[in-house]
Amino acid sequence: MAFTDQLLEDYEPLWQRMLGHRFLRETRDGEIAETTFARWMRQDYRFVEAACPMLAALISKAPLEHRPPLTDALSALYDELDLFRDRARAAGIEVEEAEPAFICHAYIQFLLATAHRRSYAEGFTVLYAAEKAYHEAWKVVADGVGPASTWQPFVENWAGDDFAAYVAFLEGTLDDIAAGASEAERERMAELFETTVRYEVAFWELAYTSTGWPGLEGSSGR
Amino acid sequence: MAFTDQLLEDYEPLWQRMLGHRFLRETRDGEIAETTFARWMRQDYRFVEAACPMLAALISKAPLEHRPPLTDALSALYDELDLFRDRARAAGIEVEEAEPAFICHAYIQFLLATAHRRSYAEGFTVLYAAEKAYHEAWKVVADGVGPASTWQPFVENWAGDDFAAYVAFLEGTLDDIAAGASEAERERMAELFETTVRYEVAFWELAYTSTGWPGLEGSSGR
Amino acid sequence: MAFTDQLLEDYEPLWQRMLGHRFLRETRDGEIAETTFARWMRQDYRFVEAACPMLAALISKAPLEHRPPLTDALSALYDELDLFRDRARAAGIEVEEAEPAFICHAYIQFLLATAHRRSYAEGFTVLYAAEKAYHEAWKVVADGVGPASTWQPFVENWAGDDFAAYVAFLEGTLDDIAAGASEAERERMAELFETTVRYEVAFWELAYTSTGWPGLEGSSGR
Amino acid sequence: MAFTDQLLEDYEPLWQRMLGHRFLRETRDGEIAETTFARWMRQDYRFVEAACPMLAALISKAPLEHRPPLTDALSALYDELDLFRDRARAAGIEVEEAEPAFICHAYIQFLLATAHRRSYAEGFTVLYAAEKAYHEAWKVVADGVGPASTWQPFVENWAGDDFAAYVAFLEGTLDDIAAGASEAERERMAELFETTVRYEVAFWELAYTSTGWPGLEGSSGR
Repeated sequence: MAFTDQLLEDYEPLWQRMLGHRFLRETRDGEIAETTFARWMRQDYRFVEAACPMLAALISKAPLEHRPPLTDALSALYDELDLFRDRARAAGIEVEEAEPAFICHAYIQFLLATAHRRSYAEGFTVLYAAEKAYHEAWKVVADGVGPASTWQPFVENWAGDDFAAYVAFLEGTLDDIAAGASEAERERMAELFETTVRYEVAFWELAYTSTGWPGLEGSSGR
Repeated sequence: MAFTDQLLEDYEPLWQRMLGHRFLRETRDGEIAETTFARWMRQDYRFVEAACPMLAALISKAPLEHRPPLTDALSALYDELDLFRDRARAAGIEVEEAEPAFICHAYIQFLLATAHRRSYAEGFTVLYAAEKAYHEAWKVVADGVGPASTWQPFVENWAGDDFAAYVAFLEGTLDDIAAGASEAERERMAELFETTVRYEVAFWELAYTSTGWPGLEGSSGR
Repeated sequence: MAFTDQLLEDYEPLWQRMLGHRFLRETRDGEIAETTFARWMRQDYRFVEAACPMLAALISKAPLEHRPPLTDALSALYDELDLFRDRARAAGIEVEEAEPAFICHAYIQFLLATAHRRSYAEGFTVLYAAEKAYHEAWKVVADGVGPASTWQPFVENWAGDDFAAYVAFLEGTLDDIAAGASEAERERMAELFETTVRYEVAFWELAYTSTGWPGLEGSSGR
Repeated sequence: MAFTDQLLEDYEPLWQRMLGHRFLRETRDGEIAETTFARWMRQDYRFVEAACPMLAALISKAPLEHRPPLTDALSALYDELDLFRDRARAAGIEVEEAEPAFICHAYIQFLLATAHRRSYAEGFTVLYAAEKAYHEAWKVVADGVGPASTWQPFVENWAGDDFAAYVAFLEGTLDDIAAGASEAERERMAELFETTVRYEVAFWELAYTSTGWPGLEGSSGR
């Protein structure tokens, strides 16, 4: 069985919990509170910004033949940031000034620490997990969001054909990488897959929670 | 005014909130629940383990004259891990198998990402903030813990003279580093000081909360 | 005076020594030995390959607004490698199997160590120095190479308008970066500029020397 | 066959060439020119300084149980620098102001780039190769240098029992690491072993050559 098939099978309950998060269901059904969606947008904008240096650090470790497609993926993140700003303007949301909430801050540190400290195979696993999760999550949303929705461009971006092809590239490439990895490294890759999906769940959860830090919820912040 | 004096003045409310955390008061007064203290011990053991590579990465960026004292500090962390294992045996707590809880995992990622991505001055600030916070926190505890307490060796370790001298070295050195830094870098250092103290508060808070991840509290975990 | 003007003025004799290297003159005048040019091509191909992870590591440290143009520059390096393979085929030279000679190996290690260990400002200085040097060097060659030459595409690549605009972007950006840097950092940047130009001279020199390692010239190699 | 035995067998001719370098023979026989030895001392002092951040970066990647012995090794490097300064004073040589020569600069960049970009197993291989080479090289010298020699403390440092025990630790540990590595990684480790021994030869060679850079031998330098 291919490595990514095995991952998705081994972590099926966690994966389904992520795809079943109420954020996705409520966005699909047009029932999500504006403040909830806006909180997600502001935090995800910060997250995508931080994913850029993570991907660049991964490219710096990549073998020759992976560099051009990963560089295209990096350029696509810049377009994604444009999309965020465009949708934020359309919805009257300010995204460029938001402080990262605790969960967002933590996920960003995880991305960056992984990119710098882990092997290429391990860092690639985190990239795959996060992009695959987004693709599948927005396919859930796509079932209900119509062309008139302000959020249709997000659906097109992550559930559309281009992103599907990108995720398929990541999937096939990760299977190849895993085939050449030692058993010990494959175990570390699987652990990082699980951690990434846990962070994805936490990130959807963030949209419904205070953006304060643990033990400081009532404080004025910085 | 010295840079560290300015930091402690600017972030006085946050600093006092950290020092006033009920974990410290309850430990001082011998009123802390065993499970609460045990949860802190298991998580802090994981944290100190992860602080070792952070400090090693910092040494790799340090100027010549800072390397020997920081290498001594690294050796002291190995002794600190021995102390944890010793106290854990004395109290019948298993520390070596614990999974990092979400807050612990996040703080570790922050340490490691900072060590690799930030300047020496910025990384040094995080080291100072964490060690200064521990020194002051255990001085709070020291007011109530007597020689008969199982936790007296922790008090001796962090509130004692050797650690005080180490923190004084960090303080004086950070003041020197800050004096040679640009204004923009000093601002980044101050932000990292604040973030570190926020993580310290979050870490005490962790002792009272579930070790689950956001949105997955009821799940079986890994 | 702008920082880059100051650099070029302070290191004028070294810079002229680089531009006056016989490799450039002989290539311009069509007098270069085929084996000499082929040795340069094989080694420079290896060097450009290694410049890709250096540039990716620099992007991972870059502020938001510098990331897209540097990512375009990274994509341009992939095109440059295509150009090398294309010209190698045209001239019957094998470039993809060459071992890095000592000087090439050393320059690559310098690029990579700098990208990982030095600040963004310092790494950017090395990128600027290497690209500016290539632009000016190939403008020397351009004075003599005609459209019929096998090497005309190299002249077009490095002496042409697109590359000129890229070097102008690097120059203006480095001036901005330097304006915000501390005096101590500007001194480190100037040292790295000098070291890079020294490596550029060494690299032209390499084309005329054995590819062996010091003390092992007569050995069979690996 | 243990991995390190295999390395020493596979690269036997290169290893013997290193051990047979005239620098070692002439030092052993008391025939080395003072300027030659002084040039080596000044350059090796710079090299040992740069090995400290390399070793610290390696510690930051090391598994738990390797950290304390590697930290002791780092502390030993500080003692080694003291030894250099002490011997330099005894011989009237200035070591602290020397610029790294080209070969020294290159070897330092190799150490640092390896520490940051390669796996722990690969970085450990370079550390082993360099320390094993020094141990064996100074055992060659030990055959002729007597207690009255100014250089006897160097012989004691690198050919003595403590260093022998350290090299034996590195050897056994590398064998364990290699046993758990994939075949592809073992190949990369072997390549790095060879590259390190080549640099060792180059470094002895440096003692007999100008400290100028290729193509700039006649220039005034910086």
